[in-house]
Amino acid sequence: MPLNVTQKLIQEHLVSGEMTPGEEIGLKIDQTLTQDATGTMVMLELEAMEIDKVKTEVSAQYVDHNLIQNDHRNPDDHLFLRSAAQKFGVHYSRPGNGVSHPVHMQELAIPGKTLLGSDSHTCANGCMGMLAMGAGGIDVTMAMAGEPYYVEMPRIMGVKLTGRLPDWVSAKDVILEMLRRHTVNGGVGKIIEYYGPGLDDLSAMDRHVIANMGAELGATTSVFPSDKEVKRFMGTQGRVDEWNELKADAGAEYDDHDEIDLSELVPLIAKPTSPDNVVPVEEIAGEEIYQSYIGSSANPGYRDFAIAAEIVKGRQIANGISFDINPTSRLLLQQLVENGHIGSLLTSGARLHQAGCNGCIGMGQAPATGRNSLRTTPRNFPGRSGTKEDSVFLCSPETAAASALSGVITDPRTLDMEHPEIAEAAAIKMEEMLEAPPEDTSSVEITKGPNVTSIPDFDPIEDNFDMPVLLKMADNISTDEILAGGSRVLPFRSNIPKISTFVFEGIDETYTERAEEKLEEGGHMIVAGNNYGQGSSREHAALAPRYLGLKVVLVKNFARIHLQNLINFGILPLTFVDAEDHGKIEQEDVIEFRNVHQAIRDGNTFTIRLKNSGEEITVRHSMTSRHLDILLAGGIINWAKQRQ
Amino acid sequence: MPLNVTQKLIQEHLVSGEMTPGEEIGLKIDQTLTQDATGTMVMLELEAMEIDKVKTEVSAQYVDHNLIQNDHRNPDDHLFLRSAAQKFGVHYSRPGNGVSHPVHMQELAIPGKTLLGSDSHTCANGCMGMLAMGAGGIDVTMAMAGEPYYVEMPRIMGVKLTGRLPDWVSAKDVILEMLRRHTVNGGVGKIIEYYGPGLDDLSAMDRHVIANMGAELGATTSVFPSDKEVKRFMGTQGRVDEWNELKADAGAEYDDHDEIDLSELVPLIAKPTSPDNVVPVEEIAGEEIYQSYIGSSANPGYRDFAIAAEIVKGRQIANGISFDINPTSRLLLQQLVENGHIGSLLTSGARLHQAGCNGCIGMGQAPATGRNSLRTTPRNFPGRSGTKEDSVFLCSPETAAASALSGVITDPRTLDMEHPEIAEAAAIKMEEMLEAPPEDTSSVEITKGPNVTSIPDFDPIEDNFDMPVLLKMADNISTDEILAGGSRVLPFRSNIPKISTFVFEGIDETYTERAEEKLEEGGHMIVAGNNYGQGSSREHAALAPRYLGLKVVLVKNFARIHLQNLINFGILPLTFVDAEDHGKIEQEDVIEFRNVHQAIRDGNTFTIRLKNSGEEITVRHSMTSRHLDILLAGGIINWAKQRQ
Repeated sequence: MPLNVTQKLIQEHLVSGEMTPGEEIGLKIDQTLTQDATGTMVMLELEAMEIDKVKTEVSAQYVDHNLIQNDHRNPDDHLFLRSAAQKFGVHYSRPGNGVSHPVHMQELAIPGKTLLGSDSHTCANGCMGMLAMGAGGIDVTMAMAGEPYYVEMPRIMGVKLTGRLPDWVSAKDVILEMLRRHTVNGGVGKIIEYYGPGLDDLSAMDRHVIANMGAELGATTSVFPSDKEVKRFMGTQGRVDEWNELKADAGAEYDDHDEIDLSELVPLIAKPTSPDNVVPVEEIAGEEIYQSYIGSSANPGYRDFAIAAEIVKGRQIANGISFDINPTSRLLLQQLVENGHIGSLLTSGARLHQAGCNGCIGMGQAPATGRNSLRTTPRNFPGRSGTKEDSVFLCSPETAAASALSGVITDPRTLDMEHPEIAEAAAIKMEEMLEAPPEDTSSVEITKGPNVTSIPDFDPIEDNFDMPVLLKMADNISTDEILAGGSRVLPFRSNIPKISTFVFEGIDETYTERAEEKLEEGGHMIVAGNNYGQGSSREHAALAPRYLGLKVVLVKNFARIHLQNLINFGILPLTFVDAEDHGKIEQEDVIEFRNVHQAIRDGNTFTIRLKNSGEEITVRHSMTSRHLDILLAGGIINWAKQRQ
Repeated sequence: MPLNVTQKLIQEHLVSGEMTPGEEIGLKIDQTLTQDATGTMVMLELEAMEIDKVKTEVSAQYVDHNLIQNDHRNPDDHLFLRSAAQKFGVHYSRPGNGVSHPVHMQELAIPGKTLLGSDSHTCANGCMGMLAMGAGGIDVTMAMAGEPYYVEMPRIMGVKLTGRLPDWVSAKDVILEMLRRHTVNGGVGKIIEYYGPGLDDLSAMDRHVIANMGAELGATTSVFPSDKEVKRFMGTQGRVDEWNELKADAGAEYDDHDEIDLSELVPLIAKPTSPDNVVPVEEIAGEEIYQSYIGSSANPGYRDFAIAAEIVKGRQIANGISFDINPTSRLLLQQLVENGHIGSLLTSGARLHQAGCNGCIGMGQAPATGRNSLRTTPRNFPGRSGTKEDSVFLCSPETAAASALSGVITDPRTLDMEHPEIAEAAAIKMEEMLEAPPEDTSSVEITKGPNVTSIPDFDPIEDNFDMPVLLKMADNISTDEILAGGSRVLPFRSNIPKISTFVFEGIDETYTERAEEKLEEGGHMIVAGNNYGQGSSREHAALAPRYLGLKVVLVKNFARIHLQNLINFGILPLTFVDAEDHGKIEQEDVIEFRNVHQAIRDGNTFTIRLKNSGEEITVRHSMTSRHLDILLAGGIINWAKQRQ
């Protein structure tokens, strides 16, 4: 059977399962990518698993998110990450080197490989003929430890590109057109594979732009073939010897179909407050702006900055406009410097920021209240910019630069100038971008500042025990209610004892104190209603309560991801067989559990008993045998440790 | 009588008083400088005074402190400042243009003029033959409104410079030598005037380095002559026609004397935690560092960055080091780009930050806990870096760059290279650095985001009134206790209603509520002991309580600056004639004041009466007739408004 590129990538890495959409498949992971915001926990998990050295072909730790150092915490994390990278055999990219996705593409990406990253835009490296997917931190940890990545086999949507982009229209407009057609849910459960003659005029970095914002379609990932353009790109990085060709077989088929004639596209813009709120720029031209912003992994290429520079060259941007240039990487910045583009931007009045993610993830460059901000970034969800009442538009560098000149939203086709042709930048010999780990890691000591603490050891759940019910809750408790996010809590993401002091604080501020009192006696349990653990996928909403002694969660039913997180951290997740039994339990009741290990292995239901009344309640679990192994090991860290 | 440069500057601008050290003199102010952290309040004060247009020759508003935009507040302030600058006829320097002091020097400084700035390093422009002084916000507001600046006539210390700096020793080492000799108190009540043949090899920017850190000596300011070097410098800025010569007369004398033979200096470094904790670099060479930091108004010159670039050119900085480059200005950054120096820095591994004050004032670049940070900045007070347990050293760019290469504190004289000669950068035509205000400001509307509120109108103190004592306090109440600083409170510096909710919160958290209850009835008073209002000079410690209805402060004695601030905001400051009377008043007592206006005009003492007991207490004030005018107008804003 002729195969498409996605099928070839999956087949090559299939460890378990069948390539039937909807079935769980296990995939061998060749490469991993972590960034600093998620990487600290990954490194702590590797430490807790007592891993000597990662088992991937290559893993890289980037520092690109937390670059604003207002106190000791971010720089302490940077030192911790570097030392942990050296200890575990991981490449380290220092602060200032730039955004993970384009740097990984330039330095480490290899066509035909799988890449798992603890960042949702990891899919960007699909531009290199890779199967590149974003995942949760512990998934990446497990991949680094040599475990497969489990995912539902997606449907494959083939998108045929034909024609050639007109002047003033670029790759960003292609992905905005996809969002206009398919919305932010259109890619859910799918991998999007681009093919066709339209690829011939899209550079590897243009394809990066398109693959990156596949995340905004909700897609598992996006895939491009590895063709002569990928070979050319790798040549500019001095890595042509690592190139492989990867193309769909003649006659390959797709589960779903779409087609874009590039020659028919116009400059597009996503209005607040969703990436799929897309209209032609000309439709809203003339609206006043406060900010024009070039950067992020959604427009990371040399071309993306150079064309903005050519547009403003010799002119002055409008007074009162903040024209923010956020270079992708140290290497790119140097190429822009050498070719005079930074000069053109600076003389026009631009603000040049350090290389990194910056305002794309709300770290600086927040816009003024209610003022329009045009950005080449991938997301415009409300408040993501840092300003609660923001008004963020997503567009191409051409549209952003044209608007900076005029001070109003401007279709770049109306500029009074020839369309500039951007020549490829010459290769530059930078000093080391990625610090390779030492061959012998045995003498490396991990450096921990005062805010970085190891993940505690957890024992497996006992076989016979009595558990006090410390909280009884109703339906729809979210992970935000279990453990809040935000700037008050998140700085303690590497400090489990400290972050645990915030658990359930909005629901019952006596909880943490009462939980600590029960720690010596063997811990506690909680009871809730339907849809327990909905919302954000954060692992700390399981890890932090577990640190406080939470052993059993008994509810009417669970939100999917939180259920997985409870198992991963060794907490027994149970549901009522009869939802009415929720009414029989009161806060402060004590419940007897007997022969639990055997009971959960033998079947899906078993019986527990209220100590005071003697009343029995039947409960159920939905764990697979792999889940049971993880739970009875005391969580996935212990489980992985035993497999070393 | 032959005059020195300082005497000529003062004589030329003397409005009142005699040039006798210790006597109050009034000086005409030609130019003002405000930055964004202090400028918002200055602009609100101008608005409250109903000023149409500033009366200085030139005033400039810079945005260089609050450049990190994590939410709406800083960008809202930027828009407010730009609109207010246009309204009041002030030049505006947009975010990203750079640090006020060097930009002012390049664009607006004129030898022979006076400059008052709401930033302590305003003294840096003494390098241009100006009398340049830092002052509180309201002082600068008054200067913009055309009022003189009042200061005690300082002693003048002449420092004769001879010889020529050796290779690897630069201007920073000169001022570090001054700090080593004179300590951080050595300049108090003095103006330091540099003269002698050693000046011939010090560029205008080198002199800026020396004048800037005169603030760290505690000096009123530092002064240099305006000689052919200043003429050359102004020529490079296309402003040679604005140059004036200003030299000491032959035989001019000084009140105090010192002399430095530049040829005998060695690379120096100030160890934590004071700028005067100075030793030769070689004495502590070999200590490990975490950070090397080039930038700030204490080393703002092209040369300062270029020599660092030449030192690291073609080499790689040590792994694990954060080598932070904080360009002074957009113009300087562009000069460094054009001449290849940014390239050398980037390829070596440096992090390039936006132009501005940045980490010098704790806005980013904080070091890791307890790790050594080498900085070319002016101050290393504990915690100023943003990291509480910091370890900051102050040194020259040569020492910082040499240490970045090796990863340990390194005397640049031990580098294995020829001393690089740095050629002056060619002039660059930038698009507008300073936005000139419009000729006709009548149609300008001031833009206020939700965090910017106007200063309330205050009525003058009544003539006959009964005042409840809402707080009775003991000795040494600091302005921090009256109104805290820090990141929780300071973001509301432009929002008096909001910032007033923090008043006295550490002393009595019921105060603000009780004060509000008394507002309708005419306000309240407070009583305290000795040294009331010590510490930081912040004006909000008077303005915010006044907003809550504070009318009278009765204490044993006042800290000097806070006393001035109370008068400025129309609060009657009284002391006990007999300090023992402090014991007679209890919190919640009500005190009767009768014929106050006449009483305070007639003499320094008068009598008040406790309403309950009828007991009389004699109180004193120390206000001059100018102070009385201000007080009885309801504060300096009303007073100035009446004089328009």
